[in-house]
Amino acid sequence: MTLLESLKWRYAAKRMTGAKVSEEKIELLLEAIRLSASGFGLQPYQVLIIDNPDLKSKIQPIAYGQPQIVESSHLLVFAAWNEVTEDKINHFINTVSTQRNVPIEALGDYKNAIAGSLLRLPQDVQATWAAKQVYLAMGTALTAAAELRIDTTPMEGFVPAQLDELLGLKEKGLHSVLILAVGERHEEADFMTGAAKVRYPKEELFVRL
Amino acid sequence: MTLLESLKWRYAAKRMTGAKVSEEKIELLLEAIRLSASGFGLQPYQVLIIDNPDLKSKIQPIAYGQPQIVESSHLLVFAAWNEVTEDKINHFINTVSTQRNVPIEALGDYKNAIAGSLLRLPQDVQATWAAKQVYLAMGTALTAAAELRIDTTPMEGFVPAQLDELLGLKEKGLHSVLILAVGERHEEADFMTGAAKVRYPKEELFVRL
Repeated sequence: MTLLESLKWRYAAKRMTGAKVSEEKIELLLEAIRLSASGFGLQPYQVLIIDNPDLKSKIQPIAYGQPQIVESSHLLVFAAWNEVTEDKINHFINTVSTQRNVPIEALGDYKNAIAGSLLRLPQDVQATWAAKQVYLAMGTALTAAAELRIDTTPMEGFVPAQLDELLGLKEKGLHSVLILAVGERHEEADFMTGAAKVRYPKEELFVRL
Repeated sequence: MTLLESLKWRYAAKRMTGAKVSEEKIELLLEAIRLSASGFGLQPYQVLIIDNPDLKSKIQPIAYGQPQIVESSHLLVFAAWNEVTEDKINHFINTVSTQRNVPIEALGDYKNAIAGSLLRLPQDVQATWAAKQVYLAMGTALTAAAELRIDTTPMEGFVPAQLDELLGLKEKGLHSVLILAVGERHEEADFMTGAAKVRYPKEELFVRL
């Protein structure tokens, strides 16, 4: 499996060169994100793709001035649903019906399982559940980017409310959860390039019962 | 990239054959999980590995009777830290110091960044943050398993408090977040085998700004 080599190659780049990642590679990365697993398959998020330099400059102060924001090729903003509604579940079930060529009526149990699990939750718990699915998609994205030898920086370090305001996310029923800066690592400027990857030894991380 | 083919191949198996996955493949999967990214690199979780049939039988009712629990080769229980403490951060910084061969004193800024972000959070927010890192690791695990052609079922559907009790997780400062059943899909018994993968079209999932 070349995947382990890719996972060793990747790290969170602290500086990037500004070089553009090809549209072809971006499309492959997006397709991996689209294929990511999610709870019930509901994919309760959208991903905003930003390569406009002016918009990146406006985002930089919201992300505590991190240089990768403006040195990246693209920023992907992962924004989760603020709530799970019956309308959203209906739209998902319609998508299942169309893509599997199955009548809506045959999907009643599936719909009830989703609705029964999620609709009764308080709105903030729904939002947290949706945010967790974003983290799962991020795990897929980081792995796919590494296989494509695209450098990345996953970021939790920004002020979500400010980013939501800038991007008009509230009106879309979304809240920003993670930013992924996508680009090319700057070997000279980044003090972390070449640093050993730190991970707990397996004896510490895994417990066999 | 063969990864897209692997992501298309994978699905959440509803039934498994009971066939054992080789220890060699399990070790590769665990290594991918160990290499997963996490916030600050803190890996705020442990993964419990279960292949004992008696223990699986005890877990099955806690997971609403799902057959993959006992039909799997191995269960991986992803358990997140209940809180982020100064001791845990110190242990992490010691790990960084050892693995990078850097004196502890040189890691003060790094330690302060982690402590400044996480220690001030309420305990329940720390636990949620740790749980989110588990979802990220799950994204890595599902992708790696697919590359290895190991079938999987990621599960949110279980009663965490009961699983924590059964596995003695509270005493370890952990709480169960996700179960990953690992095994071999049962092509005949699983009504979902061969069903088209349902995903929102890219025009719906992605927004270019």
